[in-house]
Amino acid sequence: MAETSLIAEPGKQEIVVSRVFDAPRDLVFKACTDPELIAQWWGPKGFTTTVEELDVRPGGMWRVVQRDAEGNEYAFHGVYHEVTPERIVDTFEYEAMPGHVLLETETFEDLGGGRTKMTDQMVLQSVEDRDGMLQSGSQEEMIEPMERLAGLLQSLKQAAPAR
Amino acid sequence: MAETSLIAEPGKQEIVVSRVFDAPRDLVFKACTDPELIAQWWGPKGFTTTVEELDVRPGGMWRVVQRDAEGNEYAFHGVYHEVTPERIVDTFEYEAMPGHVLLETETFEDLGGGRTKMTDQMVLQSVEDRDGMLQSGSQEEMIEPMERLAGLLQSLKQAAPAR
Repeated sequence: MAETSLIAEPGKQEIVVSRVFDAPRDLVFKACTDPELIAQWWGPKGFTTTVEELDVRPGGMWRVVQRDAEGNEYAFHGVYHEVTPERIVDTFEYEAMPGHVLLETETFEDLGGGRTKMTDQMVLQSVEDRDGMLQSGSQEEMIEPMERLAGLLQSLKQAAPAR
Repeated sequence: MAETSLIAEPGKQEIVVSRVFDAPRDLVFKACTDPELIAQWWGPKGFTTTVEELDVRPGGMWRVVQRDAEGNEYAFHGVYHEVTPERIVDTFEYEAMPGHVLLETETFEDLGGGRTKMTDQMVLQSVEDRDGMLQSGSQEEMIEPMERLAGLLQSLKQAAPAR
């Protein structure tokens, strides 16, 4: 059962996705900033995710390409505004919809006991953009990777129990 | 009389400032991307504006400091996501309120006849941030510079009539 929460209030231009992970904050942060780890959990089910660029610092660019089984490509890119262990602020653009940019704020909250709450807030340029993003199937595509991330974090913890 | 429009609908997390300038698009774009020109129109009345950094390209950082008559400093910074002659998308953070970031989309629309409509849309992380920004006197501070920019553009046109 998915433990990911997705909130998109009617008439607003934001989407808030959050989940509590049974993993320490530094490990959750690493899974969100390491290209090899991101490729393992980001993107829709059945797609291959390639991190082409991920320069995790203010002003650094990122670009990710997802490929489906037919070889169709879906590319995204953005730039980092702020990167701290508690918060990442960046921009996000789906290249098939140029000019439609969203502001993403990821927060990593240490809940103690080796648990971390990650919240991903996306603010879009309009309610129409927000609703369009939800209607295009992205809702499932936003929850699913968070569940996959939870599984990845469990594997990483088992692989490095000393963390 | 101010010809600048400022729209901030109740309950929304955005502010839209726009104005039609009696100047060609390339000149309006230049006034928004040239450090020496920005220093002449940006910022509240009576303040000195210093452009400390302005790297106008995707991933480029910018930082501007405003100083009042008493020497108090108000600093802002952000990063460019996209820069084209028609549109600039960047982030914007007031350093006295760290972590509160907005996404800014500036569009430059050629209306023909040497006139340009500039629209500055700011999307904030919350309605509270948006309302706080309006209440802090920023409303006047957002309109006034646009009027000053109109005057600057007139001077620039007179100085270079061949444009």
